[in-house]
This record gives sequence, structure tokens and C-alpha cells, in this order.
Amino acid sequence: MKAVVYKGEKQVAMETVDDPRIEKPTDVLVKITTTNICGSDLHLYEGRAGFEPGRILGHENQGEVIEVGNAVTRVKVGDRVCLPFNIGCGFCDNCEHGLTAFCQTNNPDPAMVGAAYGYANMGPYWGGQAELLRVPFGDFNCLVLPPDADEKANDYVMLSDIFPTGWHATRLAGLQPGESIVIYGAGPVGLLAAHAAAIQGAAKIMVVDEHQDRLKLAEDFGAVPIDFRAHDPVEQVTALTGGRGADRGCECVGYQACGLKREEVPNKTMNDLVKSVKFTGGIGVVGVFVPQDPGAHDELAKSGQIAFDLGTFFTRGQKMGSGQCSVKRYNRRLAELIHAGKAQPSRIVSHEISLDQAAEAYRHFDKRDEGWTKVVFKPAA
Amino acid sequence: MKAVVYKGEKQVAMETVDDPRIEKPTDVLVKITTTNICGSDLHLYEGRAGFEPGRILGHENQGEVIEVGNAVTRVKVGDRVCLPFNIGCGFCDNCEHGLTAFCQTNNPDPAMVGAAYGYANMGPYWGGQAELLRVPFGDFNCLVLPPDADEKANDYVMLSDIFPTGWHATRLAGLQPGESIVIYGAGPVGLLAAHAAAIQGAAKIMVVDEHQDRLKLAEDFGAVPIDFRAHDPVEQVTALTGGRGADRGCECVGYQACGLKREEVPNKTMNDLVKSVKFTGGIGVVGVFVPQDPGAHDELAKSGQIAFDLGTFFTRGQKMGSGQCSVKRYNRRLAELIHAGKAQPSRIVSHEISLDQAAEAYRHFDKRDEGWTKVVFKPAA
Amino acid sequence: MKAVVYKGEKQVAMETVDDPRIEKPTDVLVKITTTNICGSDLHLYEGRAGFEPGRILGHENQGEVIEVGNAVTRVKVGDRVCLPFNIGCGFCDNCEHGLTAFCQTNNPDPAMVGAAYGYANMGPYWGGQAELLRVPFGDFNCLVLPPDADEKANDYVMLSDIFPTGWHATRLAGLQPGESIVIYGAGPVGLLAAHAAAIQGAAKIMVVDEHQDRLKLAEDFGAVPIDFRAHDPVEQVTALTGGRGADRGCECVGYQACGLKREEVPNKTMNDLVKSVKFTGGIGVVGVFVPQDPGAHDELAKSGQIAFDLGTFFTRGQKMGSGQCSVKRYNRRLAELIHAGKAQPSRIVSHEISLDQAAEAYRHFDKRDEGWTKVVFKPAA
Amino acid sequence: MKAVVYKGEKQVAMETVDDPRIEKPTDVLVKITTTNICGSDLHLYEGRAGFEPGRILGHENQGEVIEVGNAVTRVKVGDRVCLPFNIGCGFCDNCEHGLTAFCQTNNPDPAMVGAAYGYANMGPYWGGQAELLRVPFGDFNCLVLPPDADEKANDYVMLSDIFPTGWHATRLAGLQPGESIVIYGAGPVGLLAAHAAAIQGAAKIMVVDEHQDRLKLAEDFGAVPIDFRAHDPVEQVTALTGGRGADRGCECVGYQACGLKREEVPNKTMNDLVKSVKFTGGIGVVGVFVPQDPGAHDELAKSGQIAFDLGTFFTRGQKMGSGQCSVKRYNRRLAELIHAGKAQPSRIVSHEISLDQAAEAYRHFDKRDEGWTKVVFKPAA
Repeated sequence: MKAVVYKGEKQVAMETVDDPRIEKPTDVLVKITTTNICGSDLHLYEGRAGFEPGRILGHENQGEVIEVGNAVTRVKVGDRVCLPFNIGCGFCDNCEHGLTAFCQTNNPDPAMVGAAYGYANMGPYWGGQAELLRVPFGDFNCLVLPPDADEKANDYVMLSDIFPTGWHATRLAGLQPGESIVIYGAGPVGLLAAHAAAIQGAAKIMVVDEHQDRLKLAEDFGAVPIDFRAHDPVEQVTALTGGRGADRGCECVGYQACGLKREEVPNKTMNDLVKSVKFTGGIGVVGVFVPQDPGAHDELAKSGQIAFDLGTFFTRGQKMGSGQCSVKRYNRRLAELIHAGKAQPSRIVSHEISLDQAAEAYRHFDKRDEGWTKVVFKPAA
Repeated sequence: MKAVVYKGEKQVAMETVDDPRIEKPTDVLVKITTTNICGSDLHLYEGRAGFEPGRILGHENQGEVIEVGNAVTRVKVGDRVCLPFNIGCGFCDNCEHGLTAFCQTNNPDPAMVGAAYGYANMGPYWGGQAELLRVPFGDFNCLVLPPDADEKANDYVMLSDIFPTGWHATRLAGLQPGESIVIYGAGPVGLLAAHAAAIQGAAKIMVVDEHQDRLKLAEDFGAVPIDFRAHDPVEQVTALTGGRGADRGCECVGYQACGLKREEVPNKTMNDLVKSVKFTGGIGVVGVFVPQDPGAHDELAKSGQIAFDLGTFFTRGQKMGSGQCSVKRYNRRLAELIHAGKAQPSRIVSHEISLDQAAEAYRHFDKRDEGWTKVVFKPAA
Repeated sequence: MKAVVYKGEKQVAMETVDDPRIEKPTDVLVKITTTNICGSDLHLYEGRAGFEPGRILGHENQGEVIEVGNAVTRVKVGDRVCLPFNIGCGFCDNCEHGLTAFCQTNNPDPAMVGAAYGYANMGPYWGGQAELLRVPFGDFNCLVLPPDADEKANDYVMLSDIFPTGWHATRLAGLQPGESIVIYGAGPVGLLAAHAAAIQGAAKIMVVDEHQDRLKLAEDFGAVPIDFRAHDPVEQVTALTGGRGADRGCECVGYQACGLKREEVPNKTMNDLVKSVKFTGGIGVVGVFVPQDPGAHDELAKSGQIAFDLGTFFTRGQKMGSGQCSVKRYNRRLAELIHAGKAQPSRIVSHEISLDQAAEAYRHFDKRDEGWTKVVFKPAA
Repeated sequence: MKAVVYKGEKQVAMETVDDPRIEKPTDVLVKITTTNICGSDLHLYEGRAGFEPGRILGHENQGEVIEVGNAVTRVKVGDRVCLPFNIGCGFCDNCEHGLTAFCQTNNPDPAMVGAAYGYANMGPYWGGQAELLRVPFGDFNCLVLPPDADEKANDYVMLSDIFPTGWHATRLAGLQPGESIVIYGAGPVGLLAAHAAAIQGAAKIMVVDEHQDRLKLAEDFGAVPIDFRAHDPVEQVTALTGGRGADRGCECVGYQACGLKREEVPNKTMNDLVKSVKFTGGIGVVGVFVPQDPGAHDELAKSGQIAFDLGTFFTRGQKMGSGQCSVKRYNRRLAELIHAGKAQPSRIVSHEISLDQAAEAYRHFDKRDEGWTKVVFKPAA
């Protein structure tokens, strides 16, 4: 089959590789119809995450079931399915409690938990930027889509990762209807966090970024755009909330947060959040931070640390939740919202292309070139 | 009246001062019968918190109502009352939501919220290490005690701060029955966090400290004592939890956490917690961290920052809650537990003395002299 | 002053009565600018609730502060305030926990809790369908409105009762974003429950009634209208939810629920709800049920009982919450939603009239005459 | 193998039947070492539940894995496992949300959800009062026990049903530490609800029954025993709670609740609960109520209804949760409590016997003969 293969730092290529096949009786084989580049794929692409050359990329995958193992009872050939980027087992302590991002079964590294398709340190699973994908524990991991699956394919595919992840940011922050929320980062996850906040009845949504095209999209989702180059974002948020600070805040940027000179300032968004959020407020962190980052310039960052304003955080009595999203916690109900026409996460899609344009797409997206908000591949087209 | 007055760095004295009196129709005047030295009083005592010389210390106060303002309707003269260290108003947004530690009415500093008796930056209120205390918004702030108030005075007085604060640590950590929890710090708050965890049905409680007398008390409360001098505490917790880490963790030390050479290492307990707590676990921080600490040796600490292992925290998908305890959230139900004989927080009391021994008591407690776990004054004795 | 006085079964009159005045230092005096007839006023009007003739009606009140007692510190003369129908004290166990509908201070009947303006069994407080109203514990009970208070008066006045009550129905039912919900009753509360569900991100909202004008309003709020005369409502809900039943259900009718022949069938809506709601679903009951109803035809109803399908409720593993809404739990955040233009509860207002039209308005509203959805008085106009 | 077979109304017999075997690749085969008679087995035994003669009884099962299907990856031959009475699939909407008592996969009746071993209307699964048991979806349904599995076999077996079910009653009631709780019914479930309440830090536990041996056991678990024959239980609870009523209440009796003359009064415990529980309190219902009961004397009961005090329930603003316990929600953490010695549910065991004594044991237990609290079979002994 054809697949997008990582070749080394800032190099990907569409290549022909062996087809995946059913390996275990609980497996499902899916013909991929839609698969996206995720912002976190750029960590792999830039060579900073230790992803092995030769591996297939892609953890935002959707398609049609073409074969099932003999222990699969729910999923049927022909089902349209969206696949959470997390590969859960369904029966470990964490999966049982809905924490499928921290599955204790599927990561072969005994010091780690959690598995994913085509990602560093998340097990040996192939990515889905390809024509076919093997899905372990298919009955547990496939979200079977409703009859409008093909028509709304670009909406449903966002259920594989970034729509639930954006939603998760607002849940970790503890958002309640009628509250205000500030979101740092207007990338795909930040934009869908804004969409999530609007659906949940936030009274005021603020999104901080510097890219005008992305801030414009944030505005389209009902948010107040805040350009951090124009004026200090903490002051802007404070002014917009009557001096009190936002009720809730989300970190949707991660460890490569940048300062005004485009230099990496890993603690910038976190400390701005602490100051932007009110006393007793909550913060959700879904932007990726890593336990070590040998390529970082900052000494602390090399060992996965940031200089964090814990004194202010404590004085304000804030709460903070973090980590990868357990997609299955949200994907069924978010599918209902898409089906009912009350959520349209596909509004962020900027490019719908074929797999052989992968190299170009990665290059543009990595540079945050204007207009390259979200790339969707259609391998079966 | 007689009162314990702060005279400057490491100096307190019992002095005679003017009696407080009813100033507003919602005030209540209390004759203090029991009042404690809190670990956080030591921040004032050591001159590192900006507490003004001449002010009266004491925010763990209990006594008998001797006069009420004409707008007071619930509290009666003669009532035995325990006073939360937080001074709430009852009608601001935060008080209404049970967040009385962040009262938006009673702190005259417009940039701050929260008020307390006899404390720095928490309003001009007098402390209760004295014979009398004026209690603002008396109907809201007095916990009226049951008939065994005098008999169990040393239990009930712990409801003013450290028993709810220890309990709060476990709630911020998200403890559920049947889980394991590790508590850093076996001071009064850490010990009562252990007590709280036992009452709530924790399956395993671990307490980390270096003082043998305090670790012995932790053991008496049902905890496994962990001496961090004997062996790395993270390794000990990991071994005690089958390699998985504790389900929950509490920080009950604060910014003056010490390393093996007794030097201050402000990020020590926080980063040890992150590594001691399992993937998906929760951390409660009630040890005090301050937004600035000019007297610190550490450059980061001067500006209220710590070098925090955010990368590991994120990878583990942990949650963290922090801040002063809103005592009223817990004090009624904890009083029921004391009344029913199911909680005995007085078990940590080491010294029951008169106000004129204050200077000596502060000196010993500040040095963590062996056996000086908790000092209780009896001004009316 | 002029006030709407209850004169006996189905009789009200505007009369001139003594002005209320500040009686306690915590009182606030309000000039009423907007006050509504509530559906529950009809229980009084119909003479079935034991309301004493001569008393002033009205518990949905809003106005301008004209005088404050000397213990009032937050509320100022000139403030625009909306008054929760519950009169709380702010310091009893229930008020402290946000359960102001069950205030243990303000109802003089020792066997009862909860107080309200102008209502039977809820204390001696005067109603606000009048020119002036005395508000006890003014600092606690006044919601101070933002600058658009006058412009959006008909929206904000709904915060006194029915918007929070409709919202409460959805909270008692446990509604989560992406779920379906069925609401029995398209009266003002049911309609605002539908509005609440839409704001919170329900995927599908169904409203059951027989009145076409009200079902039309439900549709305007985004709900699927279900006419129970056209076809069995349980079957309609089941069909609309893929055979599974609604995730959540709300009872917004109460003990005078009617069958197809307009006869009272007190268990109709409750048992229909049990069958309309899925296994594991939740039910919120805010329609009023009373402990005794001597005027009922049904023997069980006389003693406050209904023949309830507990066997089906249990088999389905459902949950049910009930009772009057504690308005202060919701009114601040709902005010934010009105202020931000994300909630418009005034859309149900059908009549805006003066106090001297009260008798006529009660007559029409009691008969559910077409188009009489919600009556708003403007005493100060 | 030998198995306890239902032969018709009040008749069971140990018979020799075919051995069960692995039928699907996800099955696990267990040699039963401990299996109990449950109070709900008596509904079958008495012929009132439509259980088909010839079927094997038993849904409280524990044993040793002797064979696994080829899709089973977690559970190993030799594992000691305790089996939740619910048979879940792990991947339906309800199982994913922890609601395994309402599994949407394993009950072949399209109008029902939920499956169980050896029970009426819960699928065709064989019971475990036998030497062997086939466990569907073994990786999901087996709780693998710690090394003290054999030593504490009678504790761990209670995790199959009644300990989680008693615990569930307290969770449905919303019990918080420091609160009071009243439990109607001192059968095995009620007693373990009392045990659960004590472990969770209830300040006062009251248990209502008439059997002195069971009330004595309640007292041993730390509860105040209330004999409803001695005096009206509502008055006793009210007096014990300072006139306020219990904070929480549990129904652990079910539809065969009896009055003072031993006659069935199906609404007795429910209405007593409503009156025993405070305003704003919560009620958990785990005693079984059925949608129809043709054998009932009471007309309402025949159609699964009770005359319920909804008026009082509403006035008090109470909440109620109901239904079978989803065992997997609790069994891991409760196993930790048993392992740590903090829970000893085996304290209710009165008889430990072999399968061939089944007929006698059923007869005594059904008659509530004194001392027959809980029967445990040891098929492998």
C-alpha cells in the first residue's frame, strides 16, 4: 500500500510498503478514507521526539472496515469508523475508568503507559497516513459512525484527536456555562477548544495567538481574538474580564511556545495563564510538554522543566489538569453534536489533498505558512 | 487585654493592648479559650513575610461569645465557637461558592482576595493569640460547637485551620476510598492530612519526613512512615505501590522545603511528588508557596518560581490543586466526626501552655525541636 | 403603595396598602420595576395551597434599591437588583452549601425550611407584585445587575425564578453536552429548560405539551415539539431517540398534570418520563408536587402520593432529583449569559402590563388562554 | 459437573450436568472455589421472577482460571479471579461509561440491557453454584486477585455482588464523610452498606430491621440498630439526628418489604425513607423493585407501581438513585481495602457448606431463619 513514511529530520515521503493485516483475533482492518496531519506530528517531523526513520506517520484516522478478526463481535465489515488516536485495551484499570490515553496494556515499554498510531514512545503501531490501518482491539477502539459519515467525513475525522483534545482542555480547566475562558494558541486544537467552549455555553471566549489567519478563525468560532504582539496578553485578558481574570484558561501550545522574537520560551504560556486566570480559576494543559528535550536551548527545558510561577498559582488557589486526551471519553457525544449539526469542527480544514502531496504539506504546515491551518489527506480518493 | 505581639524577626512578646470591641453591627466579640501556633505563623516569625511589628498573631482561634452586634441573629452570647482562619463575608461570588479563603470583600488590597486574623497581606485583622477577638460577619464566621465543646476543646480548635487544611489537601488530590496516598511533610498539617485520608478510607497512606518524632505520630495515624534521609523517597513510594506510584499525593511543606543538607530546595517536594504519583494521579498543594521571596537564596525563588517538572507532570496526565483551605467547606462535617469520636486531631498536640510562654514556644517550634509538634495556648486559664 | 392582593379563590385585586420599610439592619428596600406572574402563583390563585386572603402576591421581582439598613455593606442605593424568589440567610448549613431554597433560618415554621416572597407556607414575607418590596438579608439576596439592567429588564427578571428553575431541571437531570433531553411541559419553566439545554450543548431537545402556541415557542428555542394529543409521547420520544429513550428528562408540569380529557392525572408526566428516559438516564423534577392536596379527586393525591412506576425506574437504573431551585446557585452565571447576549429568556414574555390589569391577567393565565405565556408587570411605569 | 439446579417454586437440587466449555475466543473457564446464595436468588427460588426450571443458579462466583480462549490476553491459567455478577462486554456505550450493569451487548432481549449469571431476564448464562463456570469476555470480566486470594477467599467473593452493591447504595445516596445515614434492611446488602458507610467516614450510621441477629451484626459494623417493631423507625431516626433527619438513606429491602404483621407493604421502606431523610438529602435504592409482579396482593404492585410520597420527596428537595450495581465500578478499589485489612465483608458469613447442602441452605435462608445471614458454598472442597 501507499503510506507517508518518516525519513529523518524534516523529511517525509510517500512510499509503497507492505499491507498491514489482521494479526490477532481482536484486530480490525480499516481502509483509510480520511487522515490528517496533527500539530504533534511536527514534533516528530522536526526530529526532536526520537521517532524512528522508516515508520509510518498519522494518528488522526478514519475509514471503512474491510476485515475483522474472529473475536470481533460489534464492528462489521462496511462500517464507517473513526479511530481515536489512543489505542486502548478496554480492560486495564485506566481504560476501565475512561483513561484510555493511559492504557496499561498496549505500550510495550514497562515504564510507560498509553499507545498511539505512528508516534514516538507510544508503541510500535503503524500510522494511518496510508491506505490501510490495522486497529488493535477493534471492538473497543472503533467509533462506528452514523449514516452521514461520508457526507460529514471532515467533521467526524476530527473526533480522532483534536476535537476531543480541544474539548478536553476545557474540561481540565473546569469550564462551566456562563464563565469566561482564555485559550493560549489558535492552532487546530486551540480553535476547537474555542468551539468546544462555545458549545458548552461559555459567556466569553478569548483566544491568544499572533497569526492573523488563525485569529480570524477564532473570531468565526465566537471568540475575542487577542494578538499577543499587539499588546501584553495578560493585560488584555484582565481588561476584558473587568480586572478579575478569566474564570478558566487553556494551554494549547506546548513546550515550543515562542516569545516576541520567535525564540522558544517554554514557560511563557504557562506563566501568562497563571496571571490571566482569576483567583480560584482552573487551567487545562493539552499542549505537549516533554520529560526531556535535549535539543532545547534552555537549560531547564533540556530536562523537561520550566520556571513556573508556583507562588502566584498557589496564592490564587488555582487548579491545573494536564495530559493527552482520552478520546473515548468524549467521542460518542461529540459525534452526536456533529450529527445534529451543532458542531462543525471541519471549519478549520484548509487543505484536502492526496497522500503524494505529503512532503509539501508537512513543509508548509511546519512553517505555519499562512492559510495552512489543517491538512486532510484522502488516501482512497 | 494580654496578647502575643510580633516585635520583629524571631521576636514575639506577650503584651497588654487595648481590648477589641464591636465595631460593626455584624460583629461578634469572643473570649478566646484556645488558640494555637500554626506552622504558617513561622513565616511571619522569621521575618520573611512582611508582617508588621506591633501586630497580634494568631489565626487558629476558639472561644466563647461575650457580645454580639445588633445585626447578628444566629450567634448568641455564651455560644462556644470555633473561628475559621478565613474571614469571609458570605455574599461575594467566592463566598457564595464556598470559596471563603478567597473572599472578595474583606481584604482591603484591591489586588488581593481573602482575609485572615493576624496574618500578612490578609487584611488589618488582629490575631487571636490574645484574651479577646473581634469576629467580623459573626453569623457567617462562627462555627457554633456542640455540648462537648469544652471537653474536646483541643480537637475542635483544630477546625480553625489545620484539620480542614489537611483534609483539603486530600480533596485537592482527589483521594477516593481504596486508593493510596503519599503526603510530603509530617508537620501538623501533614499529620492531619494522614488522619483525613484514614477517615476517608484510603487503603495505604505514606508520610515522608525526616523527624523521627513526627514520623512516629504519622504511624500512629495509620500511615507508613518514610524517612527521606534513609533512602530516596520516590523510590520508597514506588516500591510500596507495586511500581505504579501512589494514586494521590499531598504537598504539606511549602516553599521552605529542605534538602539533605538542610538547605532550602523549593522545588524538592513538588518534583518528588510528580515522580511519586502515578500516571493520571492527583496532587494537592497546601504547603505555602509565595509570589515573591526576596530573602531566598535561589534566584527563581526570589520571584516565586520553581523549576518544575512540567514535562513529567504532563506525560503522566496528572492534576494539581492548590491554595489556602476554605475552612467553612469542611468544618461542620468535621465537627460531626469529632463529636462522634471518629476524628481526634488533638492527638498531635504536644504543648498546652499559657500566653506568657509564647516567646519560648515560638522559639522551639521554629527550630522544629524534638517533641514540639503543636502548641496550644489557653488564654482564659 | 399599590399591590396585587389575594382575595380568595380565583380573585385578586390591586389595592393600596401600607408601604413596607426597613425593619432590620440587614434589610434592603427596593422599588419594583418588573415583577411577573409565575405558574406557581396559580396554585395560590386557585385556592388550593392555603394562601391567606389579604396577602400580597409575587415572587419574581426586580427593581432599584432605594434604602439600605445600617448593616448592609455591599448593596448601594441606586443599584439595579434582581431578587431570587428564595429568601436565604447566607449562614445556615443549607445556605452555606448553596441550597438557599432550603434556608433553615427564614421560615418561622419549625417543621419547614425555605422562605419566599408572597407564597404559602414559605414565611410571612410580602410579595413583590407591588411598588415596593422589603428584602431581608439584602447583601446576600440581591443580585446586582450590570449596566444593561434597564435595557434587558425582561431578561434579567427571569433570573428571579423561572430561568434558574428551568436550568435547575436540566442539572437535576444530569444533562451533559451532546445528550438528548425530553421536557414535559411547555409552560414558562419548561420553555426555559429547553433554552437552558440548548445553551449547555444538548444534541436533541424534545418538549411535550398540547398547547400549539407554546409548542411553537419550544421550536423557536431549538426543540422538537411533541404534541401529546397527536400521539403517545413516550412512543414519539422513543422513535426520536433510535429506540433507546432520551438521555435525560425534566418534569416541568407538577401535580396538576392533565390527561387527554383535561382531567388531572397526577402520575401521568412522571410515569411517562420513566418510560421516555433511557436505562441509566436522569430525571429532574421542578414541577411542584405537594405533600397533601385535600382538593384533589384522586385518593392518593389527597395525601401527596402518586402511583409511581418504581419497578421500571429501578430496572432502568434511573436517577431523579427534585425540589425548588436554589436560585443563587445559578443567577450570577446566567446573568453573564444574558449580558453576553447568549441567553434571551424574555422571548417567552407575551404581556407587559400595569398592576391594575392584574385581575384580568391572572384570569387569562390561569385558563392557559392562547398567547398568555408570560405576564410581566411594570409597577413603576 | 455438579451444579445447583432450580427445579420449580421453592425447589433446588444439586445435579450432575454437562461441563461448560470455551465457546468464544474471548471466553475464560473458571473452576469455582467459592460461590454464595444471594438474597436476590430468593426471588427466583420463590417462583416469582419467571426463572426457568432446569437452569443453574448462582451469580456470586469466585475461582481459579483453568482455560482461556485464544483472544484472551490479560487473564492467565492459574489466576484467582472474582467475577462480577454483571456480564459486561467492555465496548458498548454503557460499559464504556462504567455502567456494566446495563451492558447493551450481552442481553439477547432487545428491550432489555444488562446480563448476569444464573438469573431471570438477564440472558441465558449459567450460574456459578457449580464446579465450573464459563465467563464471557474474560479479560473484561475477571478481577484478578492478589496473593492473599485463598486466605481471604470469603472476603474477596463478596466483591462479586453484595459488597459493591452495599457500597453502591451509599454512593447513590451521595454519602459524604461526616454525614449521617440510615439503612433500611439488615440483610447482607444492608449490612455491607453499613460497612461501606463506616469505611467512608460516616459520622452516624443507623440500620433498620426487625431481626435481632442481624441488628446485632449491624452494631458490630458500627451502626446504631433500630428495631422497627419496637418503635416507629421514622421517629427513631428523627430523634437520633436532632430532629433534622438523616443526611442520606438507603433502601436495601426491595419490593417484598414487610409491615408489622409480616404482610408485604411494597411502599413501606420507600416512604419511611422519604420521611427519615432530611430536606436536600439523598436516597440510594438497591433493593430490587420489579416492573411487574403478577403474584403480588397489592393492585399497584402487580403493575410494578408503589404509592409514593412524591409530594414530600419534592418538598424536601431530595434526590434518589436506583438500580443494580455496576460491580466493576468499585471492585478494584474495594479489593485494595480487603487486601489492606481495612474491609472485612466476610464478617457476615454464617454458613460455609458444600453444594450438596444447597436445598437445605436455600430453605433456611428463604425463611430468614435465625443465624442464616449468608451462605457460602465451597464446590472445590
